[in-house]
Amino acid sequence: VPGTLIIPAGLPAPRIRVMHYSADSLVERNIPRTSEIRPYIQQPGVTWIDVQGLGDERIIREIGEIFSMHPLALEDVVNIPQRPKTVEYPQHQLYVSRMVSLVPTSEPSVQLLDLDQVSIFLGRSYVLTFQEDYGDVLDPVRQRIRTGAQVRRLGPDYLAYAVIDTIIDNYYPVLEYYSERIVSLEDEVLTDAHPERLKDFNQIKRDLLSLRRGIWPQRDAINVLIRDECRLISPEVRVFFRDCYDHCVQLGDSLETYRELAAGLLNTYHSAVSNRTNEIVKMLTIVSSIFIPLTFIVGIYGMNSEHIPELKSRWFYPLILLLMAAIAGGMLLYFRMAGWIGRSGKRRQPRPDRS
Amino acid sequence: VPGTLIIPAGLPAPRIRVMHYSADSLVERNIPRTSEIRPYIQQPGVTWIDVQGLGDERIIREIGEIFSMHPLALEDVVNIPQRPKTVEYPQHQLYVSRMVSLVPTSEPSVQLLDLDQVSIFLGRSYVLTFQEDYGDVLDPVRQRIRTGAQVRRLGPDYLAYAVIDTIIDNYYPVLEYYSERIVSLEDEVLTDAHPERLKDFNQIKRDLLSLRRGIWPQRDAINVLIRDECRLISPEVRVFFRDCYDHCVQLGDSLETYRELAAGLLNTYHSAVSNRTNEIVKMLTIVSSIFIPLTFIVGIYGMNSEHIPELKSRWFYPLILLLMAAIAGGMLLYFRMAGWIGRSGKRRQPRPDRS
Amino acid sequence: VPGTLIIPAGLPAPRIRVMHYSADSLVERNIPRTSEIRPYIQQPGVTWIDVQGLGDERIIREIGEIFSMHPLALEDVVNIPQRPKTVEYPQHQLYVSRMVSLVPTSEPSVQLLDLDQVSIFLGRSYVLTFQEDYGDVLDPVRQRIRTGAQVRRLGPDYLAYAVIDTIIDNYYPVLEYYSERIVSLEDEVLTDAHPERLKDFNQIKRDLLSLRRGIWPQRDAINVLIRDECRLISPEVRVFFRDCYDHCVQLGDSLETYRELAAGLLNTYHSAVSNRTNEIVKMLTIVSSIFIPLTFIVGIYGMNSEHIPELKSRWFYPLILLLMAAIAGGMLLYFRMAGWIGRSGKRRQPRPDRS
Amino acid sequence: VPGTLIIPAGLPAPRIRVMHYSADSLVERNIPRTSEIRPYIQQPGVTWIDVQGLGDERIIREIGEIFSMHPLALEDVVNIPQRPKTVEYPQHQLYVSRMVSLVPTSEPSVQLLDLDQVSIFLGRSYVLTFQEDYGDVLDPVRQRIRTGAQVRRLGPDYLAYAVIDTIIDNYYPVLEYYSERIVSLEDEVLTDAHPERLKDFNQIKRDLLSLRRGIWPQRDAINVLIRDECRLISPEVRVFFRDCYDHCVQLGDSLETYRELAAGLLNTYHSAVSNRTNEIVKMLTIVSSIFIPLTFIVGIYGMNSEHIPELKSRWFYPLILLLMAAIAGGMLLYFRMAGWIGRSGKRRQPRPDRS
Amino acid sequence: VPGTLIIPAGLPAPRIRVMHYSADSLVERNIPRTSEIRPYIQQPGVTWIDVQGLGDERIIREIGEIFSMHPLALEDVVNIPQRPKTVEYPQHQLYVSRMVSLVPTSEPSVQLLDLDQVSIFLGRSYVLTFQEDYGDVLDPVRQRIRTGAQVRRLGPDYLAYAVIDTIIDNYYPVLEYYSERIVSLEDEVLTDAHPERLKDFNQIKRDLLSLRRGIWPQRDAINVLIRDECRLISPEVRVFFRDCYDHCVQLGDSLETYRELAAGLLNTYHSAVSNRTNEIVKMLTIVSSIFIPLTFIVGIYGMNSEHIPELKSRWFYPLILLLMAAIAGGMLLYFRMAGWIGRSGKRRQPRPDRS
Repeated sequence: VPGTLIIPAGLPAPRIRVMHYSADSLVERNIPRTSEIRPYIQQPGVTWIDVQGLGDERIIREIGEIFSMHPLALEDVVNIPQRPKTVEYPQHQLYVSRMVSLVPTSEPSVQLLDLDQVSIFLGRSYVLTFQEDYGDVLDPVRQRIRTGAQVRRLGPDYLAYAVIDTIIDNYYPVLEYYSERIVSLEDEVLTDAHPERLKDFNQIKRDLLSLRRGIWPQRDAINVLIRDECRLISPEVRVFFRDCYDHCVQLGDSLETYRELAAGLLNTYHSAVSNRTNEIVKMLTIVSSIFIPLTFIVGIYGMNSEHIPELKSRWFYPLILLLMAAIAGGMLLYFRMAGWIGRSGKRRQPRPDRS
Repeated sequence: VPGTLIIPAGLPAPRIRVMHYSADSLVERNIPRTSEIRPYIQQPGVTWIDVQGLGDERIIREIGEIFSMHPLALEDVVNIPQRPKTVEYPQHQLYVSRMVSLVPTSEPSVQLLDLDQVSIFLGRSYVLTFQEDYGDVLDPVRQRIRTGAQVRRLGPDYLAYAVIDTIIDNYYPVLEYYSERIVSLEDEVLTDAHPERLKDFNQIKRDLLSLRRGIWPQRDAINVLIRDECRLISPEVRVFFRDCYDHCVQLGDSLETYRELAAGLLNTYHSAVSNRTNEIVKMLTIVSSIFIPLTFIVGIYGMNSEHIPELKSRWFYPLILLLMAAIAGGMLLYFRMAGWIGRSGKRRQPRPDRS
Repeated sequence: VPGTLIIPAGLPAPRIRVMHYSADSLVERNIPRTSEIRPYIQQPGVTWIDVQGLGDERIIREIGEIFSMHPLALEDVVNIPQRPKTVEYPQHQLYVSRMVSLVPTSEPSVQLLDLDQVSIFLGRSYVLTFQEDYGDVLDPVRQRIRTGAQVRRLGPDYLAYAVIDTIIDNYYPVLEYYSERIVSLEDEVLTDAHPERLKDFNQIKRDLLSLRRGIWPQRDAINVLIRDECRLISPEVRVFFRDCYDHCVQLGDSLETYRELAAGLLNTYHSAVSNRTNEIVKMLTIVSSIFIPLTFIVGIYGMNSEHIPELKSRWFYPLILLLMAAIAGGMLLYFRMAGWIGRSGKRRQPRPDRS
Repeated sequence: VPGTLIIPAGLPAPRIRVMHYSADSLVERNIPRTSEIRPYIQQPGVTWIDVQGLGDERIIREIGEIFSMHPLALEDVVNIPQRPKTVEYPQHQLYVSRMVSLVPTSEPSVQLLDLDQVSIFLGRSYVLTFQEDYGDVLDPVRQRIRTGAQVRRLGPDYLAYAVIDTIIDNYYPVLEYYSERIVSLEDEVLTDAHPERLKDFNQIKRDLLSLRRGIWPQRDAINVLIRDECRLISPEVRVFFRDCYDHCVQLGDSLETYRELAAGLLNTYHSAVSNRTNEIVKMLTIVSSIFIPLTFIVGIYGMNSEHIPELKSRWFYPLILLLMAAIAGGMLLYFRMAGWIGRSGKRRQPRPDRS
Repeated sequence: VPGTLIIPAGLPAPRIRVMHYSADSLVERNIPRTSEIRPYIQQPGVTWIDVQGLGDERIIREIGEIFSMHPLALEDVVNIPQRPKTVEYPQHQLYVSRMVSLVPTSEPSVQLLDLDQVSIFLGRSYVLTFQEDYGDVLDPVRQRIRTGAQVRRLGPDYLAYAVIDTIIDNYYPVLEYYSERIVSLEDEVLTDAHPERLKDFNQIKRDLLSLRRGIWPQRDAINVLIRDECRLISPEVRVFFRDCYDHCVQLGDSLETYRELAAGLLNTYHSAVSNRTNEIVKMLTIVSSIFIPLTFIVGIYGMNSEHIPELKSRWFYPLILLLMAAIAGGMLLYFRMAGWIGRSGKRRQPRPDRS
């Protein structure tokens, strides 16, 4: 039903943090009650209200009233996950973003992907951010507000840019992790084609799909900010958003590349399994081709006929052994010449030649 | 032939239900005859005429006359299934939608997809809906009319939005079911690559295709409602339709993701089958490689020559057994070192490390 | 060379049939000579000249002169197959269409696809159709002219619509045939993976490609008729063409779905073959793994050494048989526990649960 | 370096041929020196200067000066292969085309694809064509100039059209060759899955890619000629170019179809190989499953124990033979019932049923 | 954080080289300090400042100040790799390009792909280039400045074109290398399906993806230069940029072709492995099918029954040998007729028939 706030279970209670600054002043505070927000946004200067955790409908609704949000905007904040997008409202611009991070696991080489929604409201004098969980990637922005001159000199549009840019730049190390993981899996797969690998491939594929659903719509959303002559963004800041847009495109390009390489993993895996079956069957064929005919030969002389002349000979035993050795040797030679045996020397990987 | 009403066999007889409301009044009735519709739509207020079941051409034609429908509009209502779309007529706007639901089966983990066409006519003072079968997903809308303030305050355009939005929101749990089913099949397939699984894959693939044919055209249809400055939709309600559009896009994105993952199922299945063949052939090769040479050896001493010196020896039997045990042991050792035996320890799945 | 009429060999001689009608009159005649056409088109009313068979260049040229056709238009009529398209000429609008039908074969479940070109000229007072062969799907249109009021009341643009709509509607049963054929092949393939099936797959794939090349360009062609404010089509009839356009889009969507499903057939086939190989190899491995070691054991006691103590024992024979039975039983148990034997019970297909 | 003429090695020396015509005159000559060109283009009438072979930089430069070509235009002529395109210069329109032909080979069913660049300059009174090699597909155009009325009546724009149209129409038989080759390979592959076939597939795939790179850009180039209200092309001739454009689109469509079918070849091949492996393993399994157990049985009675009672019996030999025959027969029956043997009857291909 | 210069580790210290020229003068110098740049750009004439190596933030910042660069422009220069793009600033146009080269390796047939970023600033009187490493592909441009007339006569826009064109033209030999490598791998794979080949395929695939990410965005970037009526580029030079654009499109087309062929490599590899398994299994089946039944036969006569009449016969031994030879011969004949043996003759590759 439209207009309903369905807050997903398990989200922590909201913590509100305010940064209020101008070129020569800075106030930074945790706020216990929503009623304390209003004074900040009424004073001159830029206010950043950062709400971490969405687990209390009453508080969210109160904040919604303070900023006179449209019911649909409030819904977008809590009905997680939303597709990244930008929506223009009379009072402010809503930008729904997706923040990525990696969670280390018990296995050193594996990290898990974590996606959190960040909703950013850009008003005339404030930036209001909602995050679904505690802990974010925005500390560099806070640090710059505390120390930097540029961000303090410019308006809330630059702050919004700084937040969005930091969120997007954080995709780079995540993509790099996947790039490295794909390369290392490519090597592993050739030596150890364990079926459990398939789960890894599926997981990587799924993670890359999640990342794609995080990046591409943000590109479109930023494009709307640039193109639509959005009133809340000054031309001076627009050029920064354009740079941000370029980063999105570049991330999207890289992502598609990694998706192609990840799809290639499965092919490599298939080939590795085929090759192993090949090796195993080769072994079977060599052993069988040598010993089955020999067993037949000794079988002949195991027949209980009394009229097999060779058996009488004193030289029969050494000669038949010799004959069978010759047959076995001939087979081995044949297999070697047919390339079935002996080419186990690993081809060296070519290296750049700088001599 | 254009203009003909070809009603598919098996559709139940129409049941007509009317809800007539304004901000401070509500009438809700089942109507036995079509002639009783007209009074409602002539009174001030919003009327929702909901027709469930299309199995009586005469009744459908009578309703068509009451609302002076174009022959093609009437055709779209009964010639099921139509591609979701919106068509503008002088008197009203026709929106053809597709409603999804899941039908539980004898097997707890499997549900069947059910798609029903809903045709929605939005007029100046009414919303007229045709559903092909009894039972729908619109009870939340009815409940809101009975209790809610907002829907009663706004016009038929908001009612149309509420209906369409409810239909579209109902795709979410359906997609979630498929998402979970794909994940569970992914695990099953690795342990049990039964050929019957292929039917499941085909069914999932087919269902996802059906869902896609339900979602994507609705996106376009809603876009027409937003973009075309459709006269029957007020600017206040248009923003709600825009939200609805975003949901369609998000659903479409998810769907494409699931389609990719479903396609991956088959690859996982193929790999599981290859791996099994691999295991089976490995077994065969190990057994053959150990016992075929040994059989050859005992065959030698089964030859009926009297001039095999070893056979005379008292120690022959224990020594030959020892030799063969050594050969078998050597083979096993070789297979173990080549990684063919003994690596059955399942790799543990990495878990997030929060310590 | 442009302007040349290259009539494909094997086309039958033209048969010309004229229907001339107005709201209250109807003349229907087969015409032996082209010279008899002109009087009809000069009288008030709508004339439909239907030419079946293109196998006589002279007659085609004469008709071309009567309707003062552009050389390229005449070329499009006879140089078969043309891509469906619409071309505007000063005197008339040319619409090149493709008509489908199914030809039954010696095998009841298989039908062959037959595609025929229909070129439709829409003029101020006439519709002129050229068909490459005798026999078409347009009898419902003729019947409606004979009996129907609406078609007689409206102009040649509605007649052109009726012809095009009938041609396009005829794609539905054809697509349905392919849909059913794919489903039935999907089941067959799992039980009988005969290599000859591959030919069926290729044929279906090829047919679906042909259908696609028939449908998609018609969509574009109709879109031109709607969009270009084509002078010969009245606004009243344009809405019918829009409906026709929707049908094209729906057909195209279905077609893409069937193409995906047809591509899936091959995957199912591959899996079925893999599974069979798997089964066969499993059989081989079970038989070999049981009997090769046993043969080795009996081989031991076939050695001609006189110093094998067990052989002397009176209980040797029953004990060795027992031992071997135990080994065989152990192997079978192992194979059963490893899931190689005994799971032949077919999984039941889940059914909707309406209780 | 821009402006440099890098003429590929191996191109033959230029041969210049001039056709100068008006409605009632025609001069046709081979010209030894470039200086003889200028008089023709200064006279009234249309001049076609056809240069075959590019192997002489000096001559090419001289021609470039006569027609005051832009350095880049001259570069496009000789730096082969260029992507088909059209470039407008103040004096003339350059159209770079690609001409296809098939070269017969030592094997009757195989032909090689040959692509040659043709650069066409359309000026106010002339058409200038450069071909990289001797021999072309333009003889029908020459013939029409000699005999035809229409081409002589119209200007150089129609001549340019005739040249381009002839080049494009020549793609049809080439595509037909590939269509037939794919069909014949599809049949061959099912009976003879030789690895060498893979080279054929690769070659076809590569050829179709080459053809695609020849057709699609020409479509765009012609579209530019039609759309851009190109001054050198009269409205009367533009309709012919539109027809030419339609042919390009149709060729492109066919090409995509053949590319899909060619991709299907590999799948058919894979399936054929899998089926063969299947057959071979089946053979092995049948032989092994019958004879390995029997060999075990005879092995039992080859044991040298004196206490095997059956061996003493007079009926042992016939009975054991009977028993083994029964086992073998049972196995064969089992294999037959499991469908492993005996279904070699080829399914008949369904034929159209016209009775 | 925006505006930060994060210079990747390992880049060498900047070397600055200035070329200052007009139609009749040329100065060419290595410059030790950034302060010496300013005099050159203040004099009339065109200045090319080429900075190779980015490993010194201070120097980069000084150059940034001299040319009053936007902080984001400076960032684009050092934050490598950037996606190729063009950005307009008030003072100059920034074009970010990617330069390719091949590095020979220890193995003669293999070369490694090397990509370097080049950032090109086009101002009113200067071109400023930044390269990440020493050594580039621009020597032909330098040579033309020293000797050529045209480049000296035109402004910095033509110089920028010459630089970009040279960078793009350098993709041709690189693509040619990959084209040849794919063809040679296609042949190798059929004869030697070593698993290590898969690494080569992955590498080629990855390299082609890198090249694609180098070429396609440059196409868009050049298109911006042409389309946007960029003030710094004169109409005379724009036509050269259009040619450059065509080259980009052609390169992109070729690249897609090679990507398709590279994807085909894996299919060929798969088929080669399947074929080999097929061959191996065939060998096994032939050997087993011949010798397993024969071993059974000799096993019969190894039974210790005294009542096997044949054994008594004097002719038993030669007759049984004959019988077994007949069986073996029959099997071989069967295999030959079934096409399993003897078709080892390599099919000749068809050659063009010029007779």
